[in-house]
Amino acid sequence: MSDRGIDAILVNTEPEVRYFTGFHTPFWQSPTRPWFCVVPASGKPIAVIPSIGGASMSATWIDDVRTWSSPQPDDDGVTLLIDCLREVAGTNGVIGLPMGPETHVRMPLRDLDRLRSAIGGFVDVTDIISGLRMLKSEAEIAKHRHICGIVSNAFDELPTILSTGMTERQAFATFRAEILAQGADDVPYLVGATGPGGIDDIIRQPSDREIATGDLLIFDTGSTFDGYFSDFDRNFAFGSAETDAKDAYRAVWEATEAGLEAVRPGATTTQVFTAMNQVLKANGSLGNNVGRMGHGLGMQVTEWPSHTASDDTVIQANMVLTLEPGLVWAPGKAMVHEENLVVRADGPELLSRRAASELPII
Amino acid sequence: MSDRGIDAILVNTEPEVRYFTGFHTPFWQSPTRPWFCVVPASGKPIAVIPSIGGASMSATWIDDVRTWSSPQPDDDGVTLLIDCLREVAGTNGVIGLPMGPETHVRMPLRDLDRLRSAIGGFVDVTDIISGLRMLKSEAEIAKHRHICGIVSNAFDELPTILSTGMTERQAFATFRAEILAQGADDVPYLVGATGPGGIDDIIRQPSDREIATGDLLIFDTGSTFDGYFSDFDRNFAFGSAETDAKDAYRAVWEATEAGLEAVRPGATTTQVFTAMNQVLKANGSLGNNVGRMGHGLGMQVTEWPSHTASDDTVIQANMVLTLEPGLVWAPGKAMVHEENLVVRADGPELLSRRAASELPII
Repeated sequence: MSDRGIDAILVNTEPEVRYFTGFHTPFWQSPTRPWFCVVPASGKPIAVIPSIGGASMSATWIDDVRTWSSPQPDDDGVTLLIDCLREVAGTNGVIGLPMGPETHVRMPLRDLDRLRSAIGGFVDVTDIISGLRMLKSEAEIAKHRHICGIVSNAFDELPTILSTGMTERQAFATFRAEILAQGADDVPYLVGATGPGGIDDIIRQPSDREIATGDLLIFDTGSTFDGYFSDFDRNFAFGSAETDAKDAYRAVWEATEAGLEAVRPGATTTQVFTAMNQVLKANGSLGNNVGRMGHGLGMQVTEWPSHTASDDTVIQANMVLTLEPGLVWAPGKAMVHEENLVVRADGPELLSRRAASELPII
Repeated sequence: MSDRGIDAILVNTEPEVRYFTGFHTPFWQSPTRPWFCVVPASGKPIAVIPSIGGASMSATWIDDVRTWSSPQPDDDGVTLLIDCLREVAGTNGVIGLPMGPETHVRMPLRDLDRLRSAIGGFVDVTDIISGLRMLKSEAEIAKHRHICGIVSNAFDELPTILSTGMTERQAFATFRAEILAQGADDVPYLVGATGPGGIDDIIRQPSDREIATGDLLIFDTGSTFDGYFSDFDRNFAFGSAETDAKDAYRAVWEATEAGLEAVRPGATTTQVFTAMNQVLKANGSLGNNVGRMGHGLGMQVTEWPSHTASDDTVIQANMVLTLEPGLVWAPGKAMVHEENLVVRADGPELLSRRAASELPII
């Protein structure tokens, strides 16, 4: 901030406010009220928030908690925020605001326009925020390791708790209950699908379709402990599987091996992508529609960076990353595999328990 | 739209895109990719979305699904969206965008600025969107009734599954598991607190504090079935309760009765607020920090309108609403009560099972 002459940074989405304050509540799901955190160039952050959050925010390390009674559509915190920014940064101060990839401003556009009319000098600080959040402390890594262990345990139970004849809806409920029973705080993200001999879509919600012999199943979950995510998937077949499905599974598993070899401080996300993509191509991949082969992981189920052909982020120690190679092996048949890791000086430390190298058959 | 000369409406948040398309996935938790839906003045909506959602979106009633491979930070759907808007609305078309209370634009501000440079004529259509979403179909109401019944059943079990000596974290996990066992798809919103003789904060996450005799407990949950929410709370005491806590409970219960009498088509949200507030004042309320006494309910845990002193929305049949009177009865001691209802021609139909009129003691 000092190098760039930035007097204060304004953040107003859940992970950013939580990152700087420790304020942790699912209340953000309510779209009614905006929340703001002002990070001055020196001194502690300042919370500018609805009064309903005052008690919880005051229980964090933040001393300066400024509240207004919200909802108040005519002036929902805008004047209070403008006053705070002018106090901290001066009338002609430079205010940083994340404006780039993976960010948005969570307030009504009408109010954002008012704010930008009053405060001229907003500059993009996506790189500062992502630079901080991409590097995890050991305390954060411990939370990731804990939830990844819990989800690994739950995946290990699947062969004993799922069976043909269950509906997708029942299978989802059974798996969700197992993850919670293993100790997760919540299962905010759970997608999956079943299909005869293959699956075309990996972000679906469950249907009442019954699981049958010969089906493939994928579950992909982002579960949480103390606000930190796991994000990995597992694939299973029921009864039997065709050779091409087994081959596709082995291809994404081996691509993950190549990714694990490529991940080290100093390498780039694009090198990791290329290492995985070469394995998929060699195995006859028809491409995939995911757009990347893994990403950062943290207080959100996906964070910067992305393993793509052009992302080119330099990997550093203490990044928590997923590897997520996927391929379409026949029209309408996709296979995606995923593991979670933390980058160490000498390479990756796995956080998820490594999947079986051959397609498991229930 | 025709009355106002609006050629198309652009929406890009989860509930709005789901409302117009039926596209339902937790994938929105990933902040990486923007999603767009263009609603022309005539004809079906058009989806402009990342390719990872193409298969799921094509399974909805939408015919025109335009995709790009995302993430692509240099042009993450912006050009594709601009082309679509120009095609639908013409070069100088008027495009509606929700810019008002309870809305935000979910895309990087840098990309939003590019979009607004290319498409001059954005106008606010918050009232059109909220006007549609506030009035529920019988199919939507049936989903609300179903999830409210499930959560009512789960609350009824609390006296047999909670006990002193459990930690808050264990109590949360037990309650979450019970709601899922009763048939909820998910429990996205669960807050609560325990405290000796009272509670100061109703939006907290659980701690390792052990529940003790003489504690008050509040649980407030937004649980879902097929993407539709319940949102109500219940209060309990363990072992015994002081008279002032019992009186505070009776006050919010009676305020809810007053709210139920006030809710009918043609009344306003402010009249409902005033009816509840008079009861709280008569019972010595020191105020509250929630900012309102209930709200709309739907595909989000809170929606327009709000029961406040100035909201003044005219209540109509088929609105699904919460009544949520709260008071502070002593410094640091708050009591909030909540029920869910659908407005019918002759008054409210309760969706939640009415709470006991006296503070339940476990």
